[in-house]
Amino acid sequence: MIFMKGGICSAKGFLASGVHCGLRKNAEQPDLALIYSETPCTAAGVFTKNIVKAAPVLLDIERLSSGEAQAIIVNSGNANACAPGGKENALRMAKAAADALNLSQEKVLVSSTGVIGQPLNIAAIEKSVPDAVASLSAQGSHNAALAIMTTDTIEKEVACQFEINDTIVHLGGIAKGSGMIHPNMGTMLCYITTDCAISAPLLKKALKDAVDVTFNRVSVDGDTSTNDSCIILANGLAQNETIVEFGEEYDVFFDALKEICKQLARKIASDGEGASHLITCTISGASTEKKAEQIAKSIISSSLVKTAVFGGDANWGRIICAMGYSGEEMDPNRIQIAISSYAESLIVCKNGCGIDFDEEQAARIFKEKEILISADIGEGDCYATCWGCDLTYEYVHINGDYRT
Amino acid sequence: MIFMKGGICSAKGFLASGVHCGLRKNAEQPDLALIYSETPCTAAGVFTKNIVKAAPVLLDIERLSSGEAQAIIVNSGNANACAPGGKENALRMAKAAADALNLSQEKVLVSSTGVIGQPLNIAAIEKSVPDAVASLSAQGSHNAALAIMTTDTIEKEVACQFEINDTIVHLGGIAKGSGMIHPNMGTMLCYITTDCAISAPLLKKALKDAVDVTFNRVSVDGDTSTNDSCIILANGLAQNETIVEFGEEYDVFFDALKEICKQLARKIASDGEGASHLITCTISGASTEKKAEQIAKSIISSSLVKTAVFGGDANWGRIICAMGYSGEEMDPNRIQIAISSYAESLIVCKNGCGIDFDEEQAARIFKEKEILISADIGEGDCYATCWGCDLTYEYVHINGDYRT
Repeated sequence: MIFMKGGICSAKGFLASGVHCGLRKNAEQPDLALIYSETPCTAAGVFTKNIVKAAPVLLDIERLSSGEAQAIIVNSGNANACAPGGKENALRMAKAAADALNLSQEKVLVSSTGVIGQPLNIAAIEKSVPDAVASLSAQGSHNAALAIMTTDTIEKEVACQFEINDTIVHLGGIAKGSGMIHPNMGTMLCYITTDCAISAPLLKKALKDAVDVTFNRVSVDGDTSTNDSCIILANGLAQNETIVEFGEEYDVFFDALKEICKQLARKIASDGEGASHLITCTISGASTEKKAEQIAKSIISSSLVKTAVFGGDANWGRIICAMGYSGEEMDPNRIQIAISSYAESLIVCKNGCGIDFDEEQAARIFKEKEILISADIGEGDCYATCWGCDLTYEYVHINGDYRT
Repeated sequence: MIFMKGGICSAKGFLASGVHCGLRKNAEQPDLALIYSETPCTAAGVFTKNIVKAAPVLLDIERLSSGEAQAIIVNSGNANACAPGGKENALRMAKAAADALNLSQEKVLVSSTGVIGQPLNIAAIEKSVPDAVASLSAQGSHNAALAIMTTDTIEKEVACQFEINDTIVHLGGIAKGSGMIHPNMGTMLCYITTDCAISAPLLKKALKDAVDVTFNRVSVDGDTSTNDSCIILANGLAQNETIVEFGEEYDVFFDALKEICKQLARKIASDGEGASHLITCTISGASTEKKAEQIAKSIISSSLVKTAVFGGDANWGRIICAMGYSGEEMDPNRIQIAISSYAESLIVCKNGCGIDFDEEQAARIFKEKEILISADIGEGDCYATCWGCDLTYEYVHINGDYRT
């Protein structure tokens, strides 16, 4: 598997664009993205578990029951959630794209992201759809990645190629996500394309399982949004023998998909609102992977751990405290905790008790952009990794006045 | 029921003190509190549900199985949690107080609060215990309230008197709690005294039920600490007929206890680390009180709601979003949301959809210290209120560098 450029256009037959339709004030900022495959695709999606779901999420869930799609239209600047006329506007958005692309409406999926509760300016979107279609190109991934951003500070794009039985296959993705991020299905917008030939049921299974161990292990602020969506389109143009059952070919595809999702998940955590550090937390020595995951999630979700990392304070007491209220059983007297960078590692707690450590070494570790928190609970050999970020003044600044 | 001064010394026969033993750097800051009843008490406590429990918590749980106690010694500046020699130090702390007060060790309870994982300077405490005993007085509640503070900016003290069958009874409490506060048993340190005569089993039941609807409905930052403790001592000196069964007398006592706990809980939320607003959130129209409580907790725990309140931004989309991921079922189309002060009320969402509202009125409401968020889910007639605070730059500042 080799990483490459091209994002969602790295796979054969996929075009994308990002244009400005006017939902966001800055005219330089694209706010309408279009993703299109020249041929029909099998398709799958995972969506927010929030009871309050935005209109486009409800529409996509309905449409994906067919396992087919060919285009996705996405706006930023407005979530089309809890807003008057939400369903109708989502349908109109899909219809505008379908008409301009000469597709049946059912083949078009829709996403929105931005402020909740305000009416969507559907006229502005409809007016710009022809422009989005005219702008479609095999170099359009980057503009699409820009157009789905809200408070993100960098676009999130990744792609790779790998071989299935000597056939070269491509897989790429774009994502947005910076605030309102918490491990509970999807947790952001993400679009993945592949030219792999794979049946709809297996595509769905692969996406769900990949999301579970990647996007669902990221937390920025503990809030699960109304609009979280992760959608994959597979058009089969790589011409590998269609994957229709579990086995070696499926495994190769699944591993690549997991890696793409992991790279995007890390980018989301790293670009968490106001973040100055990426926190990678691994719990080991657990009796089950699920348990390790729950404990790691508790740590990356703790406001006190997050502020300590921001302050460069090796206050591991907050880490063991967050482990203790994770809801999982464990023997506190077996807990061992280390705080590390990729260059060096510092053990701060053994057998549940603090040990003397070198504060200068701790200070050196906190100078790195990525901080590794690892803890072993000494009861088994399962482990899991979750990703988060620190809590900074900038988070408060960004979210204290988001609507204006 | 009349509120009065005197805190934990308002009840007959209770003395308290707060002295400086040296665990906190500032010599002006008392850091060792002693609470003493001149006669034996029935006693009860509720404690953190965190798996990782500090040594004094484990000791108190054991000692309270007798339902009796006569004194409580508390230090701030060090949590005696995950620290070498924790159990031994907790025992020594109790013994020092017991010896100086001429009590059996089993009658003394112990609490600690402060940094986790560092060895407790027990020698400093032992040296100061005679001073704490010599300082005991019926005017000592305020000093005790000061001595248990950590990042609290104001002491938390409340007292009342009421009648049980024409006998005057007193009830008072002190509490500390500012960060690491989340609804899950106790959530802080709190000591309550009463001269009411009540059996140990009923005292325990009353305390647990009162804590459930007050302290367990407060969140500052989502972190449940290793040391949370709420302890009540009842010495019977009011000479009412001892309450030994449920009935009118029990109800009068319970209502007063609930009110004292509620006042202290509100003080904790209001003094949340860095808080500039107290958030009082009431969910109504629920099919059960538990459901209303869960939804309200989800709102007061949301970082995005908290930053919006800090920013004075009536971004109710974040409120409905937090309701949606509360884990409770509801029909989004029936949700109604209002943001209010005690002077005026602003409906911002009807039938799950945003409605036009007056931004100037919203701005006026956010100028108040206490913001009321109320939502009705239109399915029943149960309701619950929870308390929280906003998330500010100051929270990040306080917690970015707590140990130094």
